[in-house]
Amino acid sequence: MITQMNVRGLMFDPYNNTYIVILRDEDNSDMLPIWVGKAEASAISFALEGVEAPRPMTHDLMKSILDTVDAKVISVVVNDLKDNTYYAKIHLMYEDSEYSIDSRPSDAIALALRTHAPIFAREEVLRKQASEDLDHWLENLKPEDFGKYES
Amino acid sequence: MITQMNVRGLMFDPYNNTYIVILRDEDNSDMLPIWVGKAEASAISFALEGVEAPRPMTHDLMKSILDTVDAKVISVVVNDLKDNTYYAKIHLMYEDSEYSIDSRPSDAIALALRTHAPIFAREEVLRKQASEDLDHWLENLKPEDFGKYES
Repeated sequence: MITQMNVRGLMFDPYNNTYIVILRDEDNSDMLPIWVGKAEASAISFALEGVEAPRPMTHDLMKSILDTVDAKVISVVVNDLKDNTYYAKIHLMYEDSEYSIDSRPSDAIALALRTHAPIFAREEVLRKQASEDLDHWLENLKPEDFGKYES
Repeated sequence: MITQMNVRGLMFDPYNNTYIVILRDEDNSDMLPIWVGKAEASAISFALEGVEAPRPMTHDLMKSILDTVDAKVISVVVNDLKDNTYYAKIHLMYEDSEYSIDSRPSDAIALALRTHAPIFAREEVLRKQASEDLDHWLENLKPEDFGKYES
């Protein structure tokens, strides 16, 4: 079973000096915080803001390659969580066949936002995440820790 | 005219808190220093060291996409320099046709190293660069500013 997720926000985590992408399902009942590096956060933030860089950024180049060969991103799925590390798959449609490619969730999300592909999470991942008590950690973050995407 | 270049080194530039990829031609007569961000430097350094990350890094994912659709990187070319900014093209062979895709040189180099594709620079770029007096700047760098790739 998979659940469709939206990119709800991008936060800076001052304690770990890193960024967190917040995925939430439609009902706001499930939440997935994914820690990402600065470059990945910036790739995601450019797509959220619809900013066009003067030169193609890395994920713009990736989209150009897909467009060149006429391959389409059908969906991306956060499909595993092991030792606090998330794993994802990018599902491509190419010449009437479907292909799955291993990816870090940060790259998958940055690409999904550029190709308007839906983002899913496997329910097992949502369940595992919930058990890791990250909600509690997030509740304790002060509003000023949140980036401008958080509403 | 184009000249084949090798990745000769990766340096940290302490004055600008950024990284520089050094491309040199076979004869060591031409040199191209390309300023890149930390993420791009790390993508290039992983490829130079042959390090395999536990999860695919961004340019590994790009290579996976190319492999999936059976597209081959023929070459990458640093083809322009304007206002201290370099521009590059990635040349792809796909279904017996050649395609050129705009790229930042950092992404092009990171991809070329992973796909064993040759790296070229247009002579015009080498000429323009030489006129920008960067050689002088580099000569004044102390050996300890150089990263471990510089021999």
